[in-house]
Amino acid sequence: MAEELKEEIQEGVHLKTITPEALKDAIDHHDLPCLKEIVLKVPDIDIAEALSELDIKDTIRLFRDIDTAHAATLFDELSQEQKEELIKAMTDKELVSIVNQQSADDMADTVGDMPANLAKRVLQAADKDMRQDINTLLKFKPESAGAIMTTEFIEFREGKTVEEAIKEIREKGKDAETIYTIFVTDKKRKFVGTVGLDKLVLAQPENALKDLLDIDVPSVHVNTDQEEVANLFRRYDLNAMGVVNDDSCLVGIVTVDDAVDVMTQETSEDIEQMNAVSKLEDSYLETHPRLMAKKCVPWLIVLLILGTFSSLVLSTFQEQIGVLPVLAAFIPVLMDTGGNAGGQTIALMIRGLALREFKPRDIGAILWREMRSALLIGLCVTLFSFVWFTIEQYTGIVHNTQADFVNGTEWATIWNGECWSLAFAGEVFKVSAIVSVTLFFSVLVSKVIAIVLPLGVAALKKDPAIISQPLLTTLVDMASLLIYFGIAEVLILQFV
Amino acid sequence: MAEELKEEIQEGVHLKTITPEALKDAIDHHDLPCLKEIVLKVPDIDIAEALSELDIKDTIRLFRDIDTAHAATLFDELSQEQKEELIKAMTDKELVSIVNQQSADDMADTVGDMPANLAKRVLQAADKDMRQDINTLLKFKPESAGAIMTTEFIEFREGKTVEEAIKEIREKGKDAETIYTIFVTDKKRKFVGTVGLDKLVLAQPENALKDLLDIDVPSVHVNTDQEEVANLFRRYDLNAMGVVNDDSCLVGIVTVDDAVDVMTQETSEDIEQMNAVSKLEDSYLETHPRLMAKKCVPWLIVLLILGTFSSLVLSTFQEQIGVLPVLAAFIPVLMDTGGNAGGQTIALMIRGLALREFKPRDIGAILWREMRSALLIGLCVTLFSFVWFTIEQYTGIVHNTQADFVNGTEWATIWNGECWSLAFAGEVFKVSAIVSVTLFFSVLVSKVIAIVLPLGVAALKKDPAIISQPLLTTLVDMASLLIYFGIAEVLILQFV
Repeated sequence: MAEELKEEIQEGVHLKTITPEALKDAIDHHDLPCLKEIVLKVPDIDIAEALSELDIKDTIRLFRDIDTAHAATLFDELSQEQKEELIKAMTDKELVSIVNQQSADDMADTVGDMPANLAKRVLQAADKDMRQDINTLLKFKPESAGAIMTTEFIEFREGKTVEEAIKEIREKGKDAETIYTIFVTDKKRKFVGTVGLDKLVLAQPENALKDLLDIDVPSVHVNTDQEEVANLFRRYDLNAMGVVNDDSCLVGIVTVDDAVDVMTQETSEDIEQMNAVSKLEDSYLETHPRLMAKKCVPWLIVLLILGTFSSLVLSTFQEQIGVLPVLAAFIPVLMDTGGNAGGQTIALMIRGLALREFKPRDIGAILWREMRSALLIGLCVTLFSFVWFTIEQYTGIVHNTQADFVNGTEWATIWNGECWSLAFAGEVFKVSAIVSVTLFFSVLVSKVIAIVLPLGVAALKKDPAIISQPLLTTLVDMASLLIYFGIAEVLILQFV
Repeated sequence: MAEELKEEIQEGVHLKTITPEALKDAIDHHDLPCLKEIVLKVPDIDIAEALSELDIKDTIRLFRDIDTAHAATLFDELSQEQKEELIKAMTDKELVSIVNQQSADDMADTVGDMPANLAKRVLQAADKDMRQDINTLLKFKPESAGAIMTTEFIEFREGKTVEEAIKEIREKGKDAETIYTIFVTDKKRKFVGTVGLDKLVLAQPENALKDLLDIDVPSVHVNTDQEEVANLFRRYDLNAMGVVNDDSCLVGIVTVDDAVDVMTQETSEDIEQMNAVSKLEDSYLETHPRLMAKKCVPWLIVLLILGTFSSLVLSTFQEQIGVLPVLAAFIPVLMDTGGNAGGQTIALMIRGLALREFKPRDIGAILWREMRSALLIGLCVTLFSFVWFTIEQYTGIVHNTQADFVNGTEWATIWNGECWSLAFAGEVFKVSAIVSVTLFFSVLVSKVIAIVLPLGVAALKKDPAIISQPLLTTLVDMASLLIYFGIAEVLILQFV
């Protein structure tokens, strides 16, 4: 058996792993010693993933061949689909064993997404406490502290001694989600603080819990948004956190692994929204192409409609383009640069708000800071682009026909001429100036919009990630085009 | 004092907080009972932030007025700048007390970023073990497991009993970063597995550690990238993880709070790069405008230069635009939509790679999936846009002068005419068709590039986030314009 468990030393990670084929082999042969070794040495989630590539019948057979303790922990790592298939295939007795070893919050998540008949079967298999916990948890608002908490925690009155506490932990601790953090309440069951298990182990047996309390720990209300909960874990380096009801009485706890999952989920949603994708509920590979299309099409259509404004502006200025056709050649780089500059800032705004680095009311300080960097950035971009666009015209990459006209000569003769045609140079510089000065204002305007919009949306208590970079770009495009042709009008009318 | 500690019940979060003004007040008056209450009830990081708005002298005075245990934990939450100022102001005796109560990994981070003279002072204040630990940690590659680990952990041979282990933990556990996870080694000091403190507390005193071991836990090499480490925490719901050297001997551990910090940092970097911002080392508000400009300008310039291709294409097709000027009006929406579609996919690619949801070698499965959704999306966008662009032309939002010409009548007479001018409709539909069909291919091409590029870059072991959405947009622009004018050529030559 040992040779089938590969030691994966990929990128320095030491871990035992099993391939789906090797796993199937062991399952097919009912190789009990081998299967026992697998569940001991290979992490549950990796076994679950290997199982997902096999038939569900193999999963069912595996579950019957391993001990109940491991079956329970492995069950938790299966996908929702695998869990449902397994439950359908299990006998009532097997179901009772599996279900009652799960933690209540994981079971509640599973049951919540199940078809009603399966859910009923699971709840019937659950013992009274578990069933009550599941029903309690299912009542809470989705994506709130109540929805991600568990009701299985250790709670003691503050007057208890260390010795009494440890004794009780030994008796009841097996059923708690975590005993690393002990939650302490007063006589009225109000949450007062926590004691770490490490502190408990290191303390004198006769100490009272209230002498060891950490009281500088946050707790949250059941309706607090899960993103807020995750941020508290991140900020205060928590291992577990208490959840209270309206009377400040402890009703549940959130553990760090669930907080990490929330952080990951919320960040993925932000990234999706920032790029005009409606929130995917699952991972990329789990999302069916038809559903993916549903998540992508809406914003593309909305942005297409908003893009009408740019089309309107360009159509209105068709005459100017007729007079100075080279202006059209710079439209892409003009709009891209404005959008890019704004996109930089908006990413920093949305991320900063998500990590609570600043709040909407800090808009003054942020605008002051951004204006200074935007001016510097605008200046660099303008100076560089002026030179660059001049080079583009001189080398013929972009053909400035107006310059031909004014110069009255063939393009090629510029290089052979003895004196530099001032009139020609003027035409080239005029165009470079129009574009590069527009870029300057484009950068400034886009960065200001990129601050005001998301902070404004956040101030209205909505999700700022809704201001996606594509949305910003579309708005900035319109502003940039208006500025572009505005400046072109001024310079053309003045000098032609 | 109690009234100055506000209970912050913002968004359901219960936490005691202090304003900088109230804190300064207590410091100025040397109000020892009040200060004691503050450090007990307000989390250290919040006190540190309040201090950052006061003068450094206030920080120094606070540190002298609170007990050494709290001074040590509070020190860890100060900013690098505050720490350095404080160290300069402290006496050697005070420094010894503070430094030796810090954890070695936090001290190593602090010393690593200090000017040499301060670092020397700190190392001299450190006791022998601490100094050795700091020097060891500083040798490791930045952003590796070695750089984020700590050397202060509990390690036992597997033969030890639970009773012996708990006794030793009581004696030595105070100095460990965490005693929640006990690391177990064999006789050769090779890492074999972990035992949770909870398991230890719940076990029989005579059990040997090797009977309680979790062996399905990963460990990493000191040179493993920190992002890989963070992903392991996320995947396996770890609390702490062992770090080994070339001989598989345990040299340090990483704890979950540090892993969470790495996750946050790595995600922020991905988001910055995806939006063409070079990695910021600090948060937004900590980044000076001049530095922000340095982080933003490079990519804007590079993208501007790459945008030359689009300018070249448009300049080359100036004649077509002359024949059918309305084509120019649709350029913004054409390029935006392609960029938006690609941006959606690239965000999902970069995020999926970062979370290890898939690897570069899954490119086959991903392309197959994406092609199917891209076809659906392209179809929806094309059909909608054909109708929309037709409406735009009929309502005069976009003025199709060619249609005027062919129709030979004023624009307005279309609505008054009795028979629908077929020639006119043809002109309008021709343009709508050119743009919407281009959009179809634009969406497809952009989504394919959005998969191939980041996965290709990841396959070369480079950071895929370098393929920012702006970079993708610039590449897609060029492709879209070529397709656009290519189709226009075909349709114009055929029908005009």
